[in-house]
Amino acid sequence: MKILNKAMIVAATVGAVMSTSVAADVTEASSEKHAKAATQYRQAVFQLVRSNMGPLGGMAKGALPYDESVMQTNAVRLEQLAEMMGDYLSVDTRKFDVETGAKDELWENFSEVEKKVMALKTAAQGLQAAVKAGDESAYRGAIGKIGASCKSCHDDFKKD
Amino acid sequence: MKILNKAMIVAATVGAVMSTSVAADVTEASSEKHAKAATQYRQAVFQLVRSNMGPLGGMAKGALPYDESVMQTNAVRLEQLAEMMGDYLSVDTRKFDVETGAKDELWENFSEVEKKVMALKTAAQGLQAAVKAGDESAYRGAIGKIGASCKSCHDDFKKD
Repeated sequence: MKILNKAMIVAATVGAVMSTSVAADVTEASSEKHAKAATQYRQAVFQLVRSNMGPLGGMAKGALPYDESVMQTNAVRLEQLAEMMGDYLSVDTRKFDVETGAKDELWENFSEVEKKVMALKTAAQGLQAAVKAGDESAYRGAIGKIGASCKSCHDDFKKD
Repeated sequence: MKILNKAMIVAATVGAVMSTSVAADVTEASSEKHAKAATQYRQAVFQLVRSNMGPLGGMAKGALPYDESVMQTNAVRLEQLAEMMGDYLSVDTRKFDVETGAKDELWENFSEVEKKVMALKTAAQGLQAAVKAGDESAYRGAIGKIGASCKSCHDDFKKD
């Protein structure tokens, strides 16, 4: 393959991001380098999810006052991260020695993963709707649904 | 401060994400734990930027064929990441011992950082416009502008 030069390999290594929606096909990592990059990117998505969930969890528990601006911003970001998540999760790194919290089941049952990612997206949209309506009585439940979508996926596909 | 319980501290630790636009005020990290979390989140944003830029760089160099679907998806994601970037960068971690590629200047001249983040956002929108117009002759230049916005900020605010 004549055009397979260094730039292309680099691009392929970092090219986990290829489709336009939550739905994504599982593809095997093509090398250890690719698997390591894919794992790093996967974990980066969840770092950002965590950074957005932290304040929301604090508000739902009553440890922080409700802040509608933060709720709206973080809910939009969680929706955007959910949109990306399928692509980043779809690179199957099982064949390579990478440090990962992902269970093998993640790539064995990817349609289930996608359902759970969609539940996160829907829950993030739900919080946006609650904020838009200004319905403070709905905030705790809306944040709870986001947390439940995280837990549901972690229970099945993330090592303890 | 009576209500400062563990949940609140956790929320504050992960609560770098507070404003609704690229514009953000610099805030000092409140503890080593906060500084480490903020650094981790900052780096996660750039990991995702990198994962989206990789394929685009390959296309601009001619190492990968132009793929309008990938260009569109990745340009949208880069715009979203640019929207988040100001908040994540705004936590000043200089007082703590964290492993970071950020120069001190980042927090000394934050309005300049914000300008460069805005240039990334504008460039990402430019690629979306080029793809929407289907103007293949504009693709290379549009991707080049995104790369130039990365380089401009790295030159000033990132250690080699």
